[in-house]
Amino acid sequence: MSFFEGTEKLLEVWFGSSHKDRTADLRLIPREFWDDLLDLVQCKILSVVKNESIHAYVLSESSMFISKNRFILKTCGTTTLLYAVQPLLKKVKEYCGFDIVEDVFYSRKKFMQPHLQEKLHQRFEDEVKYLDQLFKDGGAYILGKLNADAWYLYTTNPQLTSPGRGVIEPDQTLEVLLSGLDPEVMKIFTTEVSKTATQATAHSGIAELLPGAQIDDYLFEPCGYSMNGILPDARYITIHITPEPECSYVSFETNVPQADYHDLIMHVLNCFKPRKFLLTVFANKASKAAGVHKDMQCEKWDEFAGFSRVDNQLCMFKNYALTYAHFARDPF
Amino acid sequence: MSFFEGTEKLLEVWFGSSHKDRTADLRLIPREFWDDLLDLVQCKILSVVKNESIHAYVLSESSMFISKNRFILKTCGTTTLLYAVQPLLKKVKEYCGFDIVEDVFYSRKKFMQPHLQEKLHQRFEDEVKYLDQLFKDGGAYILGKLNADAWYLYTTNPQLTSPGRGVIEPDQTLEVLLSGLDPEVMKIFTTEVSKTATQATAHSGIAELLPGAQIDDYLFEPCGYSMNGILPDARYITIHITPEPECSYVSFETNVPQADYHDLIMHVLNCFKPRKFLLTVFANKASKAAGVHKDMQCEKWDEFAGFSRVDNQLCMFKNYALTYAHFARDPF
Repeated sequence: MSFFEGTEKLLEVWFGSSHKDRTADLRLIPREFWDDLLDLVQCKILSVVKNESIHAYVLSESSMFISKNRFILKTCGTTTLLYAVQPLLKKVKEYCGFDIVEDVFYSRKKFMQPHLQEKLHQRFEDEVKYLDQLFKDGGAYILGKLNADAWYLYTTNPQLTSPGRGVIEPDQTLEVLLSGLDPEVMKIFTTEVSKTATQATAHSGIAELLPGAQIDDYLFEPCGYSMNGILPDARYITIHITPEPECSYVSFETNVPQADYHDLIMHVLNCFKPRKFLLTVFANKASKAAGVHKDMQCEKWDEFAGFSRVDNQLCMFKNYALTYAHFARDPF
Repeated sequence: MSFFEGTEKLLEVWFGSSHKDRTADLRLIPREFWDDLLDLVQCKILSVVKNESIHAYVLSESSMFISKNRFILKTCGTTTLLYAVQPLLKKVKEYCGFDIVEDVFYSRKKFMQPHLQEKLHQRFEDEVKYLDQLFKDGGAYILGKLNADAWYLYTTNPQLTSPGRGVIEPDQTLEVLLSGLDPEVMKIFTTEVSKTATQATAHSGIAELLPGAQIDDYLFEPCGYSMNGILPDARYITIHITPEPECSYVSFETNVPQADYHDLIMHVLNCFKPRKFLLTVFANKASKAAGVHKDMQCEKWDEFAGFSRVDNQLCMFKNYALTYAHFARDPF
């Protein structure tokens, strides 16, 4: 039986400048640094697309996004993402005029096979200890059921009045993590069925998810799929697919602002047909999606597209609110 | 330095009858059974008060409440509460016409000194494994910060349509757990300062918390205090105090329904003057307190009575919603 841990580790770091350095920009960091950094994580760059606001990298294990003051690294398999954090903070300080870490988010779903991970990543408690050495006032949270499908979050959750931080810029992230996927759909993401990544993107319906996105897709041999899409204003969409029936997994993530993610989530579910999925929505008060938190507390979401909501939690952080929900097909 | 773990383990179990046995009643179980059960937990009954709907026991380590179909056991120190669960379920089935466990809630704050506990209770993960052997579909949750003041909950979270369950009866529980208490206030709960429990109850302001309650209070030698108060309709209030400065701790709990707990919480804070506290509110949809969840999401609670809210979470369960919040004095 082949096993691959599709479950990603996800790091998002926002940087700031205490002296309001307008030239500060993460994209000034040369490519060699990113290659070296990803060596530490045990993955490498396969492809890159750029627009005027964001650089998007497809990696051998998932994706990396770099915009002016936001760094996102998402890696699956047995990669060692946390080893990137300290070198990143050091380089950013040396190189590009940012001297403040404004927000840090490290999150992941519970691994299917934690014992296959490198030691640091086997237990969330150990990841937290590691991060606590790097950040002051970090908070570690577990959403969902500890004894079922838990999702972990570490965030530095800073005060609103931290230096360097002025008016809050709108920001939001939707993540949908799907498991138990339809084997017929998953076949699309094998080289046996699809000749090219473009074919898989079109055939699966991914191409219509966010029209207008500049797409960089990648089909792995013999199976597996990654896709980055970028839009103006540093918006991105990213999808990663592990099609093997024993461990099928799909992740969908975007920071595209919408007042209501209902249709987008429906579209994702229709593309991949999972047996269960969890979703997280981060949105701050300035975001177009700020109302999503209240809406998702409504009973109408208890039964949704043939799924029952089995967990529903809301966390209020200093800068963001977070909705966490887990859905499963009945009977599960 | 003297240390006592005031932090309680709290178990609440609701029973039902599939054949609608109206005579089923936990109060039919004889006293000897409770004495034996508490031997397993390593505590004993010190005192009891009864009204027509509830029996309230002050224990050597906290309290026990028994009403028609609800059992509550709250024990502090190094007691072994979970050893009571299996014998309780067995006895209730044999003895009093209840054949369904409708709801189970096991909760506790992170211990100050977990390594002093009996092995089963040292780690929440082990408590969860133990409970998972006794209950189907139990969910284990961690609220608050894993790397700071976490609070643990295990609940069986049943479907609304489970057999034997008809219309939902209104129900609510407010718990406030206070730490870092004013040493001057804590002196009231020593035999050096108060001659009797009644004196401590009056002097501290506890007597005015819920007027009309039938109070059973107990002052320990040389220090420590427990209080049960009972009211009609199986309402209760219970307070437990560990006054030692090195490990000061107060717990307050009640199921008295109020549309707004603001004044009651203020009264509790004024009595005990903590440096920080966490509060939990469980309320179902039929409860007078159902609106508390929405109210507590408001920004007005971000700063409250000189405290900053450092955590704020909402969990929706099948029968109940739960608000969790943690408050600390600035600067903390």
